[in-house]
Amino acid sequence: MALVVMKFGGSSVANRERLFNVAGIVTRCAAEGNEVVVVVSAQGDTTDDLIEKANEITHKAPKREMDMLLSTGEQISASLLAMAIDSLGFKAISLTGGQAGFRTSSAHTSARIKKVNTERIRSELDNNNIVVVTGFQGVDQSEDITTLGRGGSDTSAVAIAAAMHADVCKIFTDVDGVYTADPRKIRNAKKLKEISFDEMLEIASLGAQVLLNRSVELAQKYNVKLEVLSSLSGNPGTIVKEVIDLEGMLIKGVTKDTSFVSVSIMEIPDQYGVAFKLFSLLGAKGINVDVILQSVARDQTRDISFTVPSADLDTVKAVLDENARALGSSGYAIDDDVAKVSIVGAGMMSHAGVAARMFRALSDAGINIKMISTSEIKISVIVARKDADRAVEAVHDEFINE
Amino acid sequence: MALVVMKFGGSSVANRERLFNVAGIVTRCAAEGNEVVVVVSAQGDTTDDLIEKANEITHKAPKREMDMLLSTGEQISASLLAMAIDSLGFKAISLTGGQAGFRTSSAHTSARIKKVNTERIRSELDNNNIVVVTGFQGVDQSEDITTLGRGGSDTSAVAIAAAMHADVCKIFTDVDGVYTADPRKIRNAKKLKEISFDEMLEIASLGAQVLLNRSVELAQKYNVKLEVLSSLSGNPGTIVKEVIDLEGMLIKGVTKDTSFVSVSIMEIPDQYGVAFKLFSLLGAKGINVDVILQSVARDQTRDISFTVPSADLDTVKAVLDENARALGSSGYAIDDDVAKVSIVGAGMMSHAGVAARMFRALSDAGINIKMISTSEIKISVIVARKDADRAVEAVHDEFINE
Repeated sequence: MALVVMKFGGSSVANRERLFNVAGIVTRCAAEGNEVVVVVSAQGDTTDDLIEKANEITHKAPKREMDMLLSTGEQISASLLAMAIDSLGFKAISLTGGQAGFRTSSAHTSARIKKVNTERIRSELDNNNIVVVTGFQGVDQSEDITTLGRGGSDTSAVAIAAAMHADVCKIFTDVDGVYTADPRKIRNAKKLKEISFDEMLEIASLGAQVLLNRSVELAQKYNVKLEVLSSLSGNPGTIVKEVIDLEGMLIKGVTKDTSFVSVSIMEIPDQYGVAFKLFSLLGAKGINVDVILQSVARDQTRDISFTVPSADLDTVKAVLDENARALGSSGYAIDDDVAKVSIVGAGMMSHAGVAARMFRALSDAGINIKMISTSEIKISVIVARKDADRAVEAVHDEFINE
Repeated sequence: MALVVMKFGGSSVANRERLFNVAGIVTRCAAEGNEVVVVVSAQGDTTDDLIEKANEITHKAPKREMDMLLSTGEQISASLLAMAIDSLGFKAISLTGGQAGFRTSSAHTSARIKKVNTERIRSELDNNNIVVVTGFQGVDQSEDITTLGRGGSDTSAVAIAAAMHADVCKIFTDVDGVYTADPRKIRNAKKLKEISFDEMLEIASLGAQVLLNRSVELAQKYNVKLEVLSSLSGNPGTIVKEVIDLEGMLIKGVTKDTSFVSVSIMEIPDQYGVAFKLFSLLGAKGINVDVILQSVARDQTRDISFTVPSADLDTVKAVLDENARALGSSGYAIDDDVAKVSIVGAGMMSHAGVAARMFRALSDAGINIKMISTSEIKISVIVARKDADRAVEAVHDEFINE
C-alpha cells in the first residue's frame, strides 16, 4: 500500500465528463489498495469569472476579500469531485485548505505555507476515505482564508506529499510530461522518462510552463518524488526526483524564451565597484538581471550588456536615465530583437565539448550568437528573435535526435 | 449608537447595481453612528445553479458535500458586498459562518444553530468594520461546513441579533412589509406598522411567504425586535415584536392556502383511542395533520376529516390503505378542491362576534364553508378552491376596509 497524492488542474475538472474522468483515475488508484489524497484547482474559467465579478465592483478590492471570493472556486470543484467519487461507490470527503490543515502567512493573494497539520487528512484516510483537498489556499493565524498565488495548487499538493511522506506526488496537467522541447513546434521532441529537480528548475525558469519553480523547489527541499502526466492520455509521464539515472540522455531539454530585452551600457569606467553599483540600483527596484556580458577593457572603459524582462523595461530605462551618466557611461542602447535558447542537462559539465557542439550546430545553421551564459547544468545563448525557432531545432537535432 | 443587524436576500444582492444599493443602505446606517452587521444570502439564482451542478454529477450527493458546495454561494456574495462597501470608503470585512462563530448540529443541509460565539464579530465591530456575514451556514464540532436549510439566512440574522443583543434586526426582502392580505390580489390590502410574534407565526404558517416561522420563533424566544422591509423602496416596513399596541387594527391579516387536501375517513368506531391511533400512524411518517373535524357519533361510528399537505398525499394514502379497515372504518375519500382562508389577530378572542362576522361575510358572498378551525389568534375556514379568492376579498372587506 502506497500513499499517493494527485493534483488535477482546472481543465482536468472543467465539466461533468472531466470530473468523472478524474474520479476514474482516482478510484482505480484506490482500488489497487493505495491511500489517495487529491488536490484540485478551480474548474476551467471559474477563477477568471470570479475575478471579473470583483472587477465589476471595484478594481481596488481588498486582497483579503479577493481571497474570500477566489477560494470558493476550489471549494466547488472539490465538493463536486467528492460527489463523483461517491457515486462510483467509493468513500470520499472534501476538505477546504483550512480543514486540511494548511496554515499560511497573512500575505493575502500570495501567502506562504507555514505548516500543514495533517491530522484531519490522516484520520479521513484511516476511515477509508479518498480525501479531496482544495488547492491554492489555506488559513492564517486568524482563521482568515488565504490563497497561495500562481501555481498554488501544485504547491499545495507537494506540501501535503512532503508533510505526509507520500510515496509519490502525481501532477496531472494537459500535457503528457516534460519534453526535450516544445512538442507543438519541434516534431521530434521526446518525452523524458526522468529529470532531476535541478534540471526541472532550469527548464521551468527558461520558459517551459509545465511546473512552476515554487512547487519544484518545495519538492526538492523535502525530496518528494514528482510525476508530471496527462489526465486524459493515460500514458506514463515524467518523473522528477533528486538523483536520476545518468546513463540516459545527456541533454534534457532545449528551451526558448522571448520575454526579455538586452540592454547595453557603453563605456563604463573600468573601476572596481561601478558595475556592482549599477546592478544594486536595478536590484533595489526588484529587477531580475539575467545574462550579463562584460567586454574586455579598452581605453580604461568597458561595455556591459545584460538581459532584463521586457515587462521591466520602463523601470530599467528610468534607472539608467537617472544614473548612467553619473556612473561615467557615455549612454545605453536597448535591443528587443533577442531570444534566449538554452540546453539543460545535469551531466553536461562532466562531458567535454557540449558547449562546442552547441555553438557549431548554430553556426552550421547560419545563426549568429550575440551573448552566452552558462551554469552547472545549462548553456544559454542569445540570438536574434527571428532565428530562435531555427536555433531550437538545430540544437535539438544535434543533441536529442542523435 | 445602536447595534443594527441587517439581512438581505438573494434578489437584493443579485448583481452589481443591487450590491451597491445594499452597500448604500448599509453605509448610511453606519454613517449615522451605528454598528452594523450584515447577513447576506447567495446572489440571485446562484444556489439553484449550484444544485444543478450537483445534479449533473449525481442525484444522491452526500449531504455533507452539498453543504460544502452550497455554502460557496453566500461566500461569494459576502465578499463582493464587502468590496462594494470598501469602495465607498467604509471599512468592511466578510466572515464565513464558521468565522462568525456559528456552531451547529451535524445535520447537514438542515442543521440547527447550537451557539453563536460572537467574539470575532465583536472585535471586528470594535475595529470600526461593517461586518458582512454569510447567511444560511455554520460549522459543526468537526469544523465541517453545515447549512441551515430553508429560510436559513433569516435565522442567521436573528441568531446574531439575539446573541449580540442588537437593537433591531432588519430583514430586507422584495416586499415592503407584512400586509393584511396578498397586495398583488387584494387592491385594498394594507401594510401593517406592527404585528406581534404570535400573529406573525400564524400568518406565516397560513401561507404568507414573508418570514419563515423558524426565524420568527427564534426572535420571539430571545425577544429580538424584527423589521420587515424592502431593500428597494426605502419605505418603513413592518415591526414584529412581543407586545404591540392593541388599540390598532383588530385583524392583522387575511391569508389563503391551497397547498393541502382534505381527507375524510368514514364510519370509524366511536371508541376511545381509535382516532388517536390513526394520527399516531400519520405522525410516525412525519405527516403534519392540520384542521381536524369529527362528526357527531351516529350508529356508534363517527366520520373524521382532516387536512394534510398535498405533497404528503401518497404517504397518507399508503397509511390509510394499510390501516383504515383494521381500524374498523368503511373507507376514506380525498377532496383536493379545497382552500383554507384565515384571519389572524391577537385581539380577536377578546372581541365577541369576530367568528360570526366572518361567517356572515362569507355567507353574504354565497360561499359555502366546509370545515372550521380556530385558535387563540386565528380563525380558519375550508372552502372550495374556486371560492378562495372571493372569500379572501369578502373577509378582507369586512374587517380591514371598515
